[in-house]
Amino acid sequence: MSLVAPATIQKVVGENLTEVSDLLAVEEPLEIRLGFGPVDDRQQKSVSVTMRTPGHDEELAMGFLFTEGIIHQPSDIVSCRHCVQDSEKEGNVLRVELKPDVVVDWARLERNTFTSSSCGLCGKTTIDAVRALTPGPMLSDFAVEPSIIHSLADRIREAQLAFAYTGGIHAATLFDAEGKLLLVREDIGRHNALDKLIGAAFWQNWLPLTQFGIFLSGRVGVELVQKSWMAGVPLLAAVGAPSSLAVQMAQDAQMTLAGFVRNERFNLYSEPGRVRITQLA
Amino acid sequence: MSLVAPATIQKVVGENLTEVSDLLAVEEPLEIRLGFGPVDDRQQKSVSVTMRTPGHDEELAMGFLFTEGIIHQPSDIVSCRHCVQDSEKEGNVLRVELKPDVVVDWARLERNTFTSSSCGLCGKTTIDAVRALTPGPMLSDFAVEPSIIHSLADRIREAQLAFAYTGGIHAATLFDAEGKLLLVREDIGRHNALDKLIGAAFWQNWLPLTQFGIFLSGRVGVELVQKSWMAGVPLLAAVGAPSSLAVQMAQDAQMTLAGFVRNERFNLYSEPGRVRITQLA
Repeated sequence: MSLVAPATIQKVVGENLTEVSDLLAVEEPLEIRLGFGPVDDRQQKSVSVTMRTPGHDEELAMGFLFTEGIIHQPSDIVSCRHCVQDSEKEGNVLRVELKPDVVVDWARLERNTFTSSSCGLCGKTTIDAVRALTPGPMLSDFAVEPSIIHSLADRIREAQLAFAYTGGIHAATLFDAEGKLLLVREDIGRHNALDKLIGAAFWQNWLPLTQFGIFLSGRVGVELVQKSWMAGVPLLAAVGAPSSLAVQMAQDAQMTLAGFVRNERFNLYSEPGRVRITQLA
Repeated sequence: MSLVAPATIQKVVGENLTEVSDLLAVEEPLEIRLGFGPVDDRQQKSVSVTMRTPGHDEELAMGFLFTEGIIHQPSDIVSCRHCVQDSEKEGNVLRVELKPDVVVDWARLERNTFTSSSCGLCGKTTIDAVRALTPGPMLSDFAVEPSIIHSLADRIREAQLAFAYTGGIHAATLFDAEGKLLLVREDIGRHNALDKLIGAAFWQNWLPLTQFGIFLSGRVGVELVQKSWMAGVPLLAAVGAPSSLAVQMAQDAQMTLAGFVRNERFNLYSEPGRVRITQLA
């Protein structure tokens, strides 16, 4: 499967119409199943269905399972592969087999997201529920020059192939203190792009990512901060705006949160000390 | 609760930093519960938890329940109100009591979205599952001048209060063939903004919306086309790009889909006949 699909479209400019060829970002459902024992036994349970752009599905599954607190290290996974028994669904069902000693909190998974944790349902308890899964506030001494953050968007645009063709896909990028881009993952869903990125780092045993920043192409909701916190990322920067709860969680996590990164400007919502400012205006 | 929350932030321009006051889009979890019988009996079941911007919660719940195929008309609802027994969750749990004769397909709801319908899991079967819930392809003679679509973004920006303050919130807008804006709903989540809009129209008994268009501030995934199809909307226009599956579903629904609506330009991905073009370039 491909990240992009061809289409014939009608382009309207003012009152004029022309027919042109275009490329669209591909969107298909992916079901993630947890398996136990031999595949033939079909001892498996569906834990998530997400609309995603095909590609890096194993990383998406690992990032999802890690940020939901189900798996903790690569060795928790016995195997991770697409189901092949049903040709129509081919490529859209991924079976992850876990070691028998991995404990899965099915009740929490069935409530489906960390936000519906039994301990409550408001901003404060949402953050409390996440904090219980994380290693606590981030104490990393990671720091970057402002010029590195200013330069990210342009440099990622170059690395982000599918966006260039479709104009309609999110990216999550891992960078280091010198601004080097280590990983870029793209998806129609911003949560998926971040899951793929964290899943790739997880599989390479890079977690916790205490000496890295993550750059997101869109807005920042609380779930993106939660995923980054789980991965131990001390700095999260984004092209778009953060929500109130995203800022609250970043402050609680002692994570540096930057928003509206564009045109040589950005805003810092928490822990500004990780951006090395020499001049106060 | 408010759409926006105040915050003190650090603004970085080039190498300079200043501290300023800012407003953030509020994000809080909302749990939707279906209730049966007297509240005291607590005969209720949670059907959804979503991160949303508070406000118009009843419309969000009705739009969600309608577009998921659970309720069909306003009279299906006995009552719809926030739970008050737990002060910490106040305002974040909404209980919808349905008439006893409303049949709820719990198995489908537990699989959580239409995308995981039992009939399969790929683009084609995703569309088939949705088609089964809708009234079929849209035959509406609704049509608009291109100038109306060109003018939408600027006019909605004026009507969209929270966006003006935060720069970080989505909007869904209902407009008619003359370009009159009838309803605008805002939310940090694009699905929620559309659910609120459809829920408001549902409650006013305007469905199916065969003589209206909907304008979205973001990108168009398949779930937004699905919701619009359920509501009978013949034209969906958006500032952002559509996905491949969104285009496929719009073609199947015979819905006009316009994307990249900006700077006197837009693209048509299906049913271009509802935009009255007089000049072919």
